Amino acid sequence: MNITALRDAHERIRPHIHRTPVLTSATFDRETGIEAFFKAEHLQKIGAFKARGALNAILRLEADTAARGVVTHSSGNHGAAVAWAAARRGIPATVVMPHGASRVKVDAVESHGARVVRCAHGEREATAEAEVASTGGTLIHPYEHPDVIAGQGTATIELLEDVGPLDALVVPVGGGGLSSGSAIALAALAPATSLVGAEPARADDAYESLGSGRLVPGRTDPDTIADGLRAGLGPTTFEILRSAGPQIVRVEDADIVEACRFHLLFMKQVVEPSGAVATAALRSIAARMPGARVGVVLSGGNTDLGWL
Amino acid sequence: MNITALRDAHERIRPHIHRTPVLTSATFDRETGIEAFFKAEHLQKIGAFKARGALNAILRLEADTAARGVVTHSSGNHGAAVAWAAARRGIPATVVMPHGASRVKVDAVESHGARVVRCAHGEREATAEAEVASTGGTLIHPYEHPDVIAGQGTATIELLEDVGPLDALVVPVGGGGLSSGSAIALAALAPATSLVGAEPARADDAYESLGSGRLVPGRTDPDTIADGLRAGLGPTTFEILRSAGPQIVRVEDADIVEACRFHLLFMKQVVEPSGAVATAALRSIAARMPGARVGVVLSGGNTDLGWL
Repeated sequence: MNITALRDAHERIRPHIHRTPVLTSATFDRETGIEAFFKAEHLQKIGAFKARGALNAILRLEADTAARGVVTHSSGNHGAAVAWAAARRGIPATVVMPHGASRVKVDAVESHGARVVRCAHGEREATAEAEVASTGGTLIHPYEHPDVIAGQGTATIELLEDVGPLDALVVPVGGGGLSSGSAIALAALAPATSLVGAEPARADDAYESLGSGRLVPGRTDPDTIADGLRAGLGPTTFEILRSAGPQIVRVEDADIVEACRFHLLFMKQVVEPSGAVATAALRSIAARMPGARVGVVLSGGNTDLGWL
Repeated sequence: MNITALRDAHERIRPHIHRTPVLTSATFDRETGIEAFFKAEHLQKIGAFKARGALNAILRLEADTAARGVVTHSSGNHGAAVAWAAARRGIPATVVMPHGASRVKVDAVESHGARVVRCAHGEREATAEAEVASTGGTLIHPYEHPDVIAGQGTATIELLEDVGPLDALVVPVGGGGLSSGSAIALAALAPATSLVGAEPARADDAYESLGSGRLVPGRTDPDTIADGLRAGLGPTTFEILRSAGPQIVRVEDADIVEACRFHLLFMKQVVEPSGAVATAALRSIAARMPGARVGVVLSGGNTDLGWL
């Protein structure tokens, strides 16, 4: 995969997505001593960057393949993104969601007309495969998919276009789709910019995998508030990230909550815990890179009011 | 007062304030059948449009007058705006706040280096006058002040520049500073645009005053969640609004809460109850003006997490 795939993805999805704004906070910059540029993907279609990758993958399907529909498994934003993108293309979508998925996420998927199939915890992949077999649809994996990765990387293209050179770019790491796409964008467009992956300390398989040089499976049922980052890297994202060599910063849940609070009170923005993990990593980065220009992807904003 | 005062104010304050973005919501437009353009003044300096008027008034002071400082009374955003604007100019500020003012609002004022003087409820104006007498400072009234009104009107100038012709503009009404400034802007720049004032039903003195043609005092201690809109019109704002003849829409607290909820969940924006009153009025406006292009001022975003 290279920058051409990302450029093509950007041309393909641009008419349908928001070019999200870049937000800044004088308060944050004063407190940390860095200049932070927050790419507001919580204001993206469906409230998360996931709209980019899902739409790119679905628009790339040949007409006859697309007509049989798409299938995915997700307890969160990727499910809504696939449902939304399929509706854009006018094709059926099936989203496999575990019984524990929150009502608000199920509602989001159904609001786009997708069919929701519930399954037991731990049976998501098998259930999705069964749906693929029975419907003839195409699986749109949340991150182990080159078109999804290329789509996610388009956020970094926009950020670099809008703010110019950066010393570092910080993105949350779960399955690795966003970080892999960002790595490909930086390698071509801003090789001097350091990529930093922010990972919940309680779901730090990327830290372990990239540190040890071999793919460690995601933890079973990790207990972190960043529910969108519980997945582990896959073979594709592991290889891309191993080659890119990002620094991985592990952040505690308390710092994630504090980052959400900062976004709410000082920036008036609703950012979900998984979406604020990169912000939570900034203070340790600021200590090592005083005065740096740092891009930060606010990856999503879908949370329920109860949590707030 | 006329558009020249607003243009001058805009030139004066522009280097110091944010040109706030205009937000839209496809979900909202689909549900209501109008096209709504939300001027995001909750993202303004100090989190409210009040920064505009206070700064304009304070920058307009002659140097020797300014050196003696400024005084105001406010339990809310105007106090923070005066404190912030005085700090910009490097002059002392005294803000009279009633004992009931929330800790977060007192902290905001103090964070800009202003002196806070607490007073009993109902003694705000007298206490502020005593401070003027003892300090020699200048009173910056929250709305009965032409420079404050001119500053508030600059938000409408920006909105019209950014989105073009509007069928209606909806702004919250408390003391009438924002609505008066908006009326002056519309009269000169967009005379075909209807001005709509949105007022909490439990603090509807503007509705009564403009309906009866004589200034009715603000209610004593109105019990509405929109704490920034409890003040009544003053002689200056009453005269400007009487001449402009806006329609006043009264909104119930339950609809204000629902509007806040909409902004949080669908737009990922933290808008305080007083700031969401115009949104709360939109559904009744939509019923009468299907397909209209409607500007809406989200006037502030300062709220505590407890309320959320």
